Amino acid sequence: MKKLTLKDQKCFYYVLSAKNEPTLTIEPGETVIVETEDAFSGQIRKPGDRRNLETAPEGNPESGPIYIEGAEKGDTLVVDIIDIKPTIGQGATRIPSWWWYLGTPGSEALEKFLNVKLPHGTRICPIKDNKVYFSEKIVIPYEPFIGTIGTALEFDATLDPGPNGGNMDQPEVKPGNRLYLPVFVEGALLHVGDVHATQGDGELCGVAIEMPAETTMKIDLIKGKRIRWPRVESPEHIMVITSSGIGRSLEDATRIGFIELILWMEEEYGFTRWDAYSLCTQVAKTQLGNFWTMAVKMPKKYLS
Amino acid sequence: MKKLTLKDQKCFYYVLSAKNEPTLTIEPGETVIVETEDAFSGQIRKPGDRRNLETAPEGNPESGPIYIEGAEKGDTLVVDIIDIKPTIGQGATRIPSWWWYLGTPGSEALEKFLNVKLPHGTRICPIKDNKVYFSEKIVIPYEPFIGTIGTALEFDATLDPGPNGGNMDQPEVKPGNRLYLPVFVEGALLHVGDVHATQGDGELCGVAIEMPAETTMKIDLIKGKRIRWPRVESPEHIMVITSSGIGRSLEDATRIGFIELILWMEEEYGFTRWDAYSLCTQVAKTQLGNFWTMAVKMPKKYLS
Amino acid sequence: MKKLTLKDQKCFYYVLSAKNEPTLTIEPGETVIVETEDAFSGQIRKPGDRRNLETAPEGNPESGPIYIEGAEKGDTLVVDIIDIKPTIGQGATRIPSWWWYLGTPGSEALEKFLNVKLPHGTRICPIKDNKVYFSEKIVIPYEPFIGTIGTALEFDATLDPGPNGGNMDQPEVKPGNRLYLPVFVEGALLHVGDVHATQGDGELCGVAIEMPAETTMKIDLIKGKRIRWPRVESPEHIMVITSSGIGRSLEDATRIGFIELILWMEEEYGFTRWDAYSLCTQVAKTQLGNFWTMAVKMPKKYLS
Amino acid sequence: MKKLTLKDQKCFYYVLSAKNEPTLTIEPGETVIVETEDAFSGQIRKPGDRRNLETAPEGNPESGPIYIEGAEKGDTLVVDIIDIKPTIGQGATRIPSWWWYLGTPGSEALEKFLNVKLPHGTRICPIKDNKVYFSEKIVIPYEPFIGTIGTALEFDATLDPGPNGGNMDQPEVKPGNRLYLPVFVEGALLHVGDVHATQGDGELCGVAIEMPAETTMKIDLIKGKRIRWPRVESPEHIMVITSSGIGRSLEDATRIGFIELILWMEEEYGFTRWDAYSLCTQVAKTQLGNFWTMAVKMPKKYLS
Repeated sequence: MKKLTLKDQKCFYYVLSAKNEPTLTIEPGETVIVETEDAFSGQIRKPGDRRNLETAPEGNPESGPIYIEGAEKGDTLVVDIIDIKPTIGQGATRIPSWWWYLGTPGSEALEKFLNVKLPHGTRICPIKDNKVYFSEKIVIPYEPFIGTIGTALEFDATLDPGPNGGNMDQPEVKPGNRLYLPVFVEGALLHVGDVHATQGDGELCGVAIEMPAETTMKIDLIKGKRIRWPRVESPEHIMVITSSGIGRSLEDATRIGFIELILWMEEEYGFTRWDAYSLCTQVAKTQLGNFWTMAVKMPKKYLS
Repeated sequence: MKKLTLKDQKCFYYVLSAKNEPTLTIEPGETVIVETEDAFSGQIRKPGDRRNLETAPEGNPESGPIYIEGAEKGDTLVVDIIDIKPTIGQGATRIPSWWWYLGTPGSEALEKFLNVKLPHGTRICPIKDNKVYFSEKIVIPYEPFIGTIGTALEFDATLDPGPNGGNMDQPEVKPGNRLYLPVFVEGALLHVGDVHATQGDGELCGVAIEMPAETTMKIDLIKGKRIRWPRVESPEHIMVITSSGIGRSLEDATRIGFIELILWMEEEYGFTRWDAYSLCTQVAKTQLGNFWTMAVKMPKKYLS
Repeated sequence: MKKLTLKDQKCFYYVLSAKNEPTLTIEPGETVIVETEDAFSGQIRKPGDRRNLETAPEGNPESGPIYIEGAEKGDTLVVDIIDIKPTIGQGATRIPSWWWYLGTPGSEALEKFLNVKLPHGTRICPIKDNKVYFSEKIVIPYEPFIGTIGTALEFDATLDPGPNGGNMDQPEVKPGNRLYLPVFVEGALLHVGDVHATQGDGELCGVAIEMPAETTMKIDLIKGKRIRWPRVESPEHIMVITSSGIGRSLEDATRIGFIELILWMEEEYGFTRWDAYSLCTQVAKTQLGNFWTMAVKMPKKYLS
Repeated sequence: MKKLTLKDQKCFYYVLSAKNEPTLTIEPGETVIVETEDAFSGQIRKPGDRRNLETAPEGNPESGPIYIEGAEKGDTLVVDIIDIKPTIGQGATRIPSWWWYLGTPGSEALEKFLNVKLPHGTRICPIKDNKVYFSEKIVIPYEPFIGTIGTALEFDATLDPGPNGGNMDQPEVKPGNRLYLPVFVEGALLHVGDVHATQGDGELCGVAIEMPAETTMKIDLIKGKRIRWPRVESPEHIMVITSSGIGRSLEDATRIGFIELILWMEEEYGFTRWDAYSLCTQVAKTQLGNFWTMAVKMPKKYLS
């Protein structure tokens, strides 16, 4: 089994760019282990640690990209997430961008306007026996997932969530589930990073339990099948993950997710469009990832 | 046990108005059974039935209001939902307002603009043995809840979801759960209607499995305690239900829900504000009711 | 010319309800003068004055409703605004709800959360010679308009902006312009109040230069013509005024405004739909009223 | 005067990347002429022309970047737009993405869902004597501006509007006005493209009157002054341009614009924060660029 270690990685990437140099090349169908740094670039390991923006100005360092042989624009990448292990037995969180979430976007200006200071809230959380120790008293199940995973777009290069994946922070991108991503460039260029030991819906303060991790994934390819937004298949659901963005409200994102889900049900599960539409109304589930990504889910038990 | 039947009701109400004449008066602590008509005003009982807007121009007829003795502005109503039974053994759904949801709001004009006609999609769904028969093949668990429930506001009179409850379409307003509603007027004036046999998150097409029902509720009062938005307590969660509205985006609604949840954790569960904030980030759940109400939930296991 | 004075009014209305008792009845085509109280219920007349929510819990007291003989559901009311005069030679403003606008909706909870106090910012502004004296140094042109004007809806009763008008805070509802409002109930029941001496786009803090006023309007009726949202005709533009609301983002409101404008151009000005669509793209104007109403405008010079 | 011609440009850029190779280097204070291709990559010159996405998959080709000597992160670029000339005497428009704007975002899926086809709407518009000939009958003033202009970000590379400028489509970025842009990377790397002969607020269908152009600009630098979002100074207004985006609704963008405007008034014009806040409420103007950028303006006459 191939392994992409942090040492192999040499440098991390902070955007999903078509120009990023692959650090691993695989054939479709291979299983790989990918080591990833945490979203803080490893700078927060003890309670007193603070982010140093001089040495690591951006968050969410990405491992990869992984070049998948034969992948071309118009194909679909299939990523089976098999396992996610913490590599240092702990995760960390803090309160970095309070205003962005609860106050209003525009963090810095609003903080200045209001003269309000928030606590740093740094917290080191040991992880063991499938538990995350938020505090001595509060113990959370270890439910790890990949916060940022995506293929490179042809032109744009950001981490923003979008049709190619990106910083989706969706708890369903987890072991046991299968992620489908559209391929836009030769080799697909799969980036992986920002693993969370657990996270609540909305990722309210913007920082989950961030941890360096070792993720085992089987990566395969469907030739000639094009999808428009990331899809996930879990044992219980099929789902589409969309995001808000310029000119696209959270409601718009949710609408798009439902349209895609309905067309999926029509194409692959034999539903008429309007039956699928009506059934979604009665049984669909939705899940906010961070404040700008929405997963729209159909229970599989209604599909067969 | 007091019972408010459809016959007692004489006329239904379509807005939560302080001027609506009570049809039942109770003491705090009483358990009542409330019969409600379905959201279609009972006009859709067979597959070929259509809504007649001449005889019933509005949807969601409300039973009540129930006058709670001693309730005054600034109090909180406590509604334990005990049981919801279908009264005619079936529910119904249809596709009434497609554009509003998936196309874009502004239904009528957009339909005209596009010259697109959608099917009526009327569907009668038998309910028995705790199952809803969406079709011969598709059977959905019977998970009933109250779609519209709310106290009267002092001034405004609509069914819109807001601080007083209203058309929240939140599946958590269900048997086994406790709903808290602020009291704004003398007697609280609790309205109940629009019961759903089941519903998916988002209530995509705008119409769930609508059914006439008999709901058993215990209604109590907390004097002198004021809350700002509806709250729900389930065996697993405490939660706040908010809604979008004029000048309040869906993200804003979600932010408000989180603020209220955090203040609740601070006031009643001994959390510091910032610990609550950080914990919400890691373990909170959210649930879209219809496209404009959001429930923000904290698992109770982290509260003790 | 009929005049509806504050004395005639006896009581004010705070919602546009079909149940409000008319205080004036007119024939279509009549010109009337309507006296209105300011949005503060007249409680802020000197710099030290503060709102007393005990004696006047709601803002925006409405004069009327005016019953227009012969008006029925499906008609359109035509209101030519002829003149607006300040009645006490001054207006007032303050900073009442800061958080709602700049911080985030949810004013009270967020203020509590942040422990931030904002100044009351009360300011009495003399009005003379067509000027508003914001301060000794800052003098603003007197550009008065009606902040809240609307017909009664059949069922709902609020001041919220919507298809029937309401609290639109749109500076184009001003002398020299013609407002079209849909009629929903017999007599139309036109309410008028909340006159502003001037206002910026967005009405940032939520309170313009509020003044008691005397407004001269000619009120006419178009039988059998139905519109879906308020329209305004100025010497330069035709325009549609829409608002955000539950399930309707500000972008959705703007989209609806454009659809309505295009259909209007098609129906009354001989454009094909797609030419109108393309022309809107090149020459339309938009104006934010308060943060939740949008006027979408087509210059008349392109219509003939 | 230096001139950057299309020939000099060799290749165009489609994102504002820090990695783009400068095609012109200047000293602060120099005046330059920049030739730009139109947003269609020059593929629509006759009525029957259509976009060929094989040969030019992206829109809005950018000229530059221009490297400004001495510019460093934390500085502010000052761009005086002096003149914009059409280079081929015509512009073009079409209806490319109808659903995105009026229907709902998610163009392709929704079109599929609805089976609705829109006309291409291609239109060649001669430009002469300061007029744009939309049709034989409809003549629009020539009011050109730069649709896309921005500095490179350190990490991300897109054309999306944001703190660095980008595809703002704001009509105020026009001759006679001064644009301020934050500098994020050495040399600033100013990109210019996507010039419009005119455009309505909202740019409804997503395509204005697009034209190849020759723009004369004086480019200067303020060392050590950092701004957070693009600013514009016109003879009449100072203004801030913000945009919606992931987690940032259009209302949020507008709020940020107002906060920035108020802080600007405080820092440079001697206002107290709360006076500025109150004055914005009374006299500010807002302008929608495309559906996701908002300019928030303060008339200069109130600043002295």
